[in-house]
Amino acid sequence: MDAEEFRRRGKEMVDLVADYLENIEDRPVYPDVEPGYLRSLIPTEAPQDPENYEDIIKDVERVIMPGITHWHSPNFFAYFPTASSYPAMLADMLCGAIGCIGFSWAASPACTELETVMLDWLGKMLQLPECFLAGTHGQGGGVIQGTASEATLMSLLAARCKAVRRIQATNSDMSEMEILSKLVAYTSDQFCATLGTTPSCAFDKTEELGPLCNEENMWMHIDAAYAGSAFICPEFRPLLNGVEFADSFNFNPHKWLLINFDCSAMWVKKRADLIGAFKMDPLYLKHENQESGLVTDYRHWQIPLGRRFRSLKMWFVFRMYGLNGLQAYIRKHVVLAKEFESLVRADKRFEICADVVLGLVCFRLKGSNELNQNLLKRITQCREIHLVPCQLSGRFVLRFAICARKIESHHVQKAWQHITQLTFELLQEPEH
Amino acid sequence: MDAEEFRRRGKEMVDLVADYLENIEDRPVYPDVEPGYLRSLIPTEAPQDPENYEDIIKDVERVIMPGITHWHSPNFFAYFPTASSYPAMLADMLCGAIGCIGFSWAASPACTELETVMLDWLGKMLQLPECFLAGTHGQGGGVIQGTASEATLMSLLAARCKAVRRIQATNSDMSEMEILSKLVAYTSDQFCATLGTTPSCAFDKTEELGPLCNEENMWMHIDAAYAGSAFICPEFRPLLNGVEFADSFNFNPHKWLLINFDCSAMWVKKRADLIGAFKMDPLYLKHENQESGLVTDYRHWQIPLGRRFRSLKMWFVFRMYGLNGLQAYIRKHVVLAKEFESLVRADKRFEICADVVLGLVCFRLKGSNELNQNLLKRITQCREIHLVPCQLSGRFVLRFAICARKIESHHVQKAWQHITQLTFELLQEPEH
Repeated sequence: MDAEEFRRRGKEMVDLVADYLENIEDRPVYPDVEPGYLRSLIPTEAPQDPENYEDIIKDVERVIMPGITHWHSPNFFAYFPTASSYPAMLADMLCGAIGCIGFSWAASPACTELETVMLDWLGKMLQLPECFLAGTHGQGGGVIQGTASEATLMSLLAARCKAVRRIQATNSDMSEMEILSKLVAYTSDQFCATLGTTPSCAFDKTEELGPLCNEENMWMHIDAAYAGSAFICPEFRPLLNGVEFADSFNFNPHKWLLINFDCSAMWVKKRADLIGAFKMDPLYLKHENQESGLVTDYRHWQIPLGRRFRSLKMWFVFRMYGLNGLQAYIRKHVVLAKEFESLVRADKRFEICADVVLGLVCFRLKGSNELNQNLLKRITQCREIHLVPCQLSGRFVLRFAICARKIESHHVQKAWQHITQLTFELLQEPEH
Repeated sequence: MDAEEFRRRGKEMVDLVADYLENIEDRPVYPDVEPGYLRSLIPTEAPQDPENYEDIIKDVERVIMPGITHWHSPNFFAYFPTASSYPAMLADMLCGAIGCIGFSWAASPACTELETVMLDWLGKMLQLPECFLAGTHGQGGGVIQGTASEATLMSLLAARCKAVRRIQATNSDMSEMEILSKLVAYTSDQFCATLGTTPSCAFDKTEELGPLCNEENMWMHIDAAYAGSAFICPEFRPLLNGVEFADSFNFNPHKWLLINFDCSAMWVKKRADLIGAFKMDPLYLKHENQESGLVTDYRHWQIPLGRRFRSLKMWFVFRMYGLNGLQAYIRKHVVLAKEFESLVRADKRFEICADVVLGLVCFRLKGSNELNQNLLKRITQCREIHLVPCQLSGRFVLRFAICARKIESHHVQKAWQHITQLTFELLQEPEH
């Protein structure tokens, strides 16, 4: 495909993308396919010779779309949101074209420097303590990880490395393996200190945990994967109090801040702690400026060596929405969650199972787990809306998460009508 | 930004992408900026209110481009190639629009199933032993990791988990920590068994290592990050011999197979080994089909939970190029490397420092390391071409890697003229 054809096909693809997203409600939100459906629809081997582009595009509708769970449908209330916005998609096109691999400052200075500054911008939006920002002379700073899991793993490895070194400094006769065998990681059932858990969006008391961790010289990592985006609103910022005790903090703008996956923002108070655990310096990655102490080489901050120019997405989204636009977006989702909560509370057959703080409502039919499992089964089979369950203190609970960028009140109302209709049918049946 | 504006801006972006890539040669391949250049060019905080899109696009040229190392310039010969093709970029646009997160089969069946089938297609192109393929009943199979580092980490963790379980089965009184303290990982100075090392594209003798590993019940992981793409050509396939002894194998189509970053292909002989090490099953990720044994939930195969729909890029590229087109692409790069090798060999001042097997030429001026460091410094400062060095047996060596999709013989010739001109000037100076 030459540039001329790309110009034509690219413009067609832009329309295809807009058409898909604007008409996504016409599709059943959840697919009706059996495991293995796709293999039988396409050849068993790659073609020897090039095929027509038209045939590939036809196959998108024939092969791919029937097997898609439409995460951006306003009828999608499962898991947590995954971000989608036009400015982020435009930035991603540019990212693909530049196609630089930012493992070191020299490999593309703009890729490294925009990331550092965007993490400062975002840190300021969250009112993170100054010590987490890079600025021009800070000891802290931010980095884009792929996912919160990677951020957690990085903080765990950095914590371990720091602890080993501290103990070795005073006990030079202890081997690393001896020290490792005595290290303890304290976790909750969500693993680390969490602001906004996945099952129910619950919040750990980090203001109580934090001082304890600091006194005992323990590394504290705080994960606010979903909830973190809300902290850009002053009314939700108190939920982040206690972050000043943390050594590292992360959340996922790719969930709720309109920046398409992947973009997990992580900050550390002392970047030397992270870099110390991972330094990787073969000659082919060295460059003149690295000894100056002025540059960041992000390969030391993460598991992967290669990295895309993901901060472009942050830059485009922050500038096209502005802080006010982003706050309005968060608030709208919270209002819609409260609206759904009110609908549930007004129906005596149902109960709310956890505080509705942000965009997630945990609810269930009063009654057995089996009853609720049956309700969810019907919801899933109808494919009009999509939810997933969670377990709270042994109880089977339905999660209703406000997800889509284009969701409105009428979608929430329609979803509730659908749920109550299925509930009516379920409760009519003799076995209940 | 609404859909209408996206249609307009998206089409402008398609042209911007094509313009950038078609005229990339007009730009100096390596940027002329000092560390910290970017921070002073943009505000210290995100804007409160939305900005104009035009202003953002103007800033791409003002703020970003001066700090870009142009990896897709035909004057870029550094590191290894990073893939770029129009079909991959089109697929990535579609991936962004669908925006599903494929951590489980149910979260988007097409995302999981296309990946499994594409890894089978690619495995067949490489003539991988059948046991690495998923097929409909295989025990093996492939997965897309972000980078080779992640693939290596996954195989290391799977190997460790498998060894611990094997020892625990016969020594039930040993604690995990005791076992861990006795485990040994054998590595080369590139870490694991490598086909095509980064410094010099050297090949380990996997046909000798493999049987030893199998006899001793050791997990063998083979990394062919760069070289792997070449194995789709029958004449280079013998370099992969020995893979039949491996437990896991990976290479990066995002390097040399025209599939934009990130796309690191990894195969395992027994997927149960990988999954066993990482199973992660909260209720909110369970789905009806997972107990059937028929579905793949890729979250168990990797560190991150979330994952993009990356196999779309493979599908578009394989179909738009065909196996013949991909082979022709690899062969052209190898021919150009050989052409450069001939130029170097014809100049008695220079020496070739490693066999030129694929697209990398390691060379140096006969003489001191300092002399070669000075030559590279001049090359870097001129910004006409870009190379990075490596160290081979204590010697400072220059790496000339064929990288760009649009590179032609005249670029190689011009690069060599430039190098010899700088050499001439360097050797003229009194201190040499």
